[in-house]
Amino acid sequence: MRLSRYFLPIIKENPQEAQIVSHRLMLRAGMIRQASAGIYSWLPLGLKVLRKIEAIVREEQDRAGAIELLMPTIQSADLWRESGRYNDYGEEMLRIVDRHKRDMLYGPTNEELITDIFRTTVKSYRDLPKNLYHIQWKFRDEIRPRFGVMRGREFLMKDAYSFDLDYAGARRSYNAMYMAYLRTFARMGLVAIPVRADSGAIGGDLSHEFQILAQTGESDIYYDAAIEDISLAKLMSVGDDFEKTVTHLQSLYAAEQEKHDAKACPVPPARLKHAKGIEVGHIFYFGTKYSKAMNAKVTGPDGADITVEMGSYGIGVSRLVGAIIEASHDDAGIIWPDAVAPFKVGLINLRANDAACVTACDDLYAKLQNAGVDVLYDDTDESAGAKFATCDLIGLPWQLVVGPRGIKSGVVELKNRRSGEKQELSPEAALHRIMG
Amino acid sequence: MRLSRYFLPIIKENPQEAQIVSHRLMLRAGMIRQASAGIYSWLPLGLKVLRKIEAIVREEQDRAGAIELLMPTIQSADLWRESGRYNDYGEEMLRIVDRHKRDMLYGPTNEELITDIFRTTVKSYRDLPKNLYHIQWKFRDEIRPRFGVMRGREFLMKDAYSFDLDYAGARRSYNAMYMAYLRTFARMGLVAIPVRADSGAIGGDLSHEFQILAQTGESDIYYDAAIEDISLAKLMSVGDDFEKTVTHLQSLYAAEQEKHDAKACPVPPARLKHAKGIEVGHIFYFGTKYSKAMNAKVTGPDGADITVEMGSYGIGVSRLVGAIIEASHDDAGIIWPDAVAPFKVGLINLRANDAACVTACDDLYAKLQNAGVDVLYDDTDESAGAKFATCDLIGLPWQLVVGPRGIKSGVVELKNRRSGEKQELSPEAALHRIMG
Repeated sequence: MRLSRYFLPIIKENPQEAQIVSHRLMLRAGMIRQASAGIYSWLPLGLKVLRKIEAIVREEQDRAGAIELLMPTIQSADLWRESGRYNDYGEEMLRIVDRHKRDMLYGPTNEELITDIFRTTVKSYRDLPKNLYHIQWKFRDEIRPRFGVMRGREFLMKDAYSFDLDYAGARRSYNAMYMAYLRTFARMGLVAIPVRADSGAIGGDLSHEFQILAQTGESDIYYDAAIEDISLAKLMSVGDDFEKTVTHLQSLYAAEQEKHDAKACPVPPARLKHAKGIEVGHIFYFGTKYSKAMNAKVTGPDGADITVEMGSYGIGVSRLVGAIIEASHDDAGIIWPDAVAPFKVGLINLRANDAACVTACDDLYAKLQNAGVDVLYDDTDESAGAKFATCDLIGLPWQLVVGPRGIKSGVVELKNRRSGEKQELSPEAALHRIMG
Repeated sequence: MRLSRYFLPIIKENPQEAQIVSHRLMLRAGMIRQASAGIYSWLPLGLKVLRKIEAIVREEQDRAGAIELLMPTIQSADLWRESGRYNDYGEEMLRIVDRHKRDMLYGPTNEELITDIFRTTVKSYRDLPKNLYHIQWKFRDEIRPRFGVMRGREFLMKDAYSFDLDYAGARRSYNAMYMAYLRTFARMGLVAIPVRADSGAIGGDLSHEFQILAQTGESDIYYDAAIEDISLAKLMSVGDDFEKTVTHLQSLYAAEQEKHDAKACPVPPARLKHAKGIEVGHIFYFGTKYSKAMNAKVTGPDGADITVEMGSYGIGVSRLVGAIIEASHDDAGIIWPDAVAPFKVGLINLRANDAACVTACDDLYAKLQNAGVDVLYDDTDESAGAKFATCDLIGLPWQLVVGPRGIKSGVVELKNRRSGEKQELSPEAALHRIMG
């Protein structure tokens, strides 16, 4: 993409309204713009990151055998009356009355609607297990929306729902999602710590929150350093045979500060870590809470009805955009992990009115595009300083800098955004380095 | 995908509530399920089609130079008061009051919000032209939602908005979208007739509706047969140099029945066609209607303010799913055009408990998957008749049938859904045929 044709409204000053670094950087980098309190438009750069995160979430859900569908944003209040949550949910639920005076709502979550779909379509034990998920916008009418997309009102969530015949099956479905979550966050370059949690309003018996480590996190967590030791390669190598790995990980200590008791903690001090975390995922096993209330049954092998066992599994997709920035930035701006970077390379022409620079840049641009590398080509006539500042701010993994002096001696400069390392290389060597 | 692991709730009987064929077939084929009046859940098969259509729409918008962003579904009423449409819009607008008693609404369209984004971020004539689009769920509170996704309340729309300095630029942006629309519909295997239209509530001077031909269409249109002559290959071959082609096409006669005057019609009878159409796209040039009301200006080359010229360009993405079925089906079910088919091949194992059949099917399944061919593998123990009926109903372009008799003589049966043609072939030859 040529920057001159793109839509990247950079803000030079720090916006007053932003209290945390991710909010500030997302506004400054032209990723989002507030439409109203807690509701954002995703500008092109922000949308690209959101879609990359969404794609990783989707791939790992699919790999785990979950099936994607899409439920609508607007739901009927009737289903929520059936489950008993319509009155319980409180003012965070955005309640709507349509032109025929029917009570509707903007879905804050989908246990009721998915249970309704299940009960009207699945009839036999032979159709189980099933795990159905969607990635859809939700609305929670937070009393005080803040921190940009970290605590917005309209937000993108992946929510999956499992249906099983018995506890053992439900537990297997739960563990499959536990594994999928670790893989998902690891692929984004994040360290995620699963912490046993209360199940709160969703109800149920077993629950884990996934906290990613970030110095600016809201949660205080204590955990066994062994949890961090599991690498992406290891997570992927266990394939579908993940029960042993999951059981091991679930046996390791991790607790939020409120529940941490230094005296009773079983972890040797040398291995006990204390860090800040941001919650980006939450999984629940809640048994028959909804299936009983809403009469979701299948016929068992012996012809008798079985009330299905359920779980639900959420990932805050839009929240992750902010959370990743909280975990990965410096004073100059964002530092995107490769897997979620909006573009892999920023190609900077230092002298947009110099024929030799333009020729060299156009050539590099074409070669990168032909190789399928996502590149943002700064072909504008801004000053060199402004171009460097923008490229640091938006955090692309590589900066490929072409200037008149270098061109004369046949070199370009390649900068790695994360390490800050700069190298003078021939254009070919630079391309080789970028493409790995 | 193995059917045994998929979620495809087929309905055998014709649903009472469905008055038109696409609604009936989408319900029967397990593509959608009504959540409440005019609001649907997209089940996995339906979602796959929706996403394929969305991808084609996106590719052609990108090719035309439009830039994707994403505006939220919930908007503040304030912007609509600025443009004067808050009171005008009537009961089709879903009005919402949030917990702080602020007037909000579920966006039925986005002229106001995009104009707000533009006026706060774009300052100079040098940043124009710009065309910004998004693909987002909209809500229109139809008094009598019907015909399934063809006239639903919550629906997916692509809407683009162009910003130009003057009429000539705006007209060029308009024509670029006109061309993009013809390419979009042609890629989906549809014949689209652009018809001059009134601009209605959006306001403005110039407008075209895109009607795709379907015997069950709601509109009656008369048009010059020459419009049909333009092929996809021709549309693609003109590249960015489309003005001549567009001017020619816009000069050809096309009118809805209300405006058609047989006596005044300039088309020779031999070339005049009369057909039913379904509106799937609508483009508008409306000048400064919104930019003036909302004060969207840029600084011109001479330092003076210029109120920008705008247009908007919609495609009914979810409506297209139904419209394509209206245009392409038979008594047995849907016939998907290749480009939007949810799977390219249905692989049918006629004897799921026969080892030789299973081995042959597993082998074909692996080979198709390795070649990147989207395949739905019916590995269930349903009867052969039921499997054939399902595969016809869901309309995959190819059916690859493996039975015990064929396996003994080294052949499988390949059926083309559209032509009905069946061939006995070696497995290798069948794969070769499918992969083209």
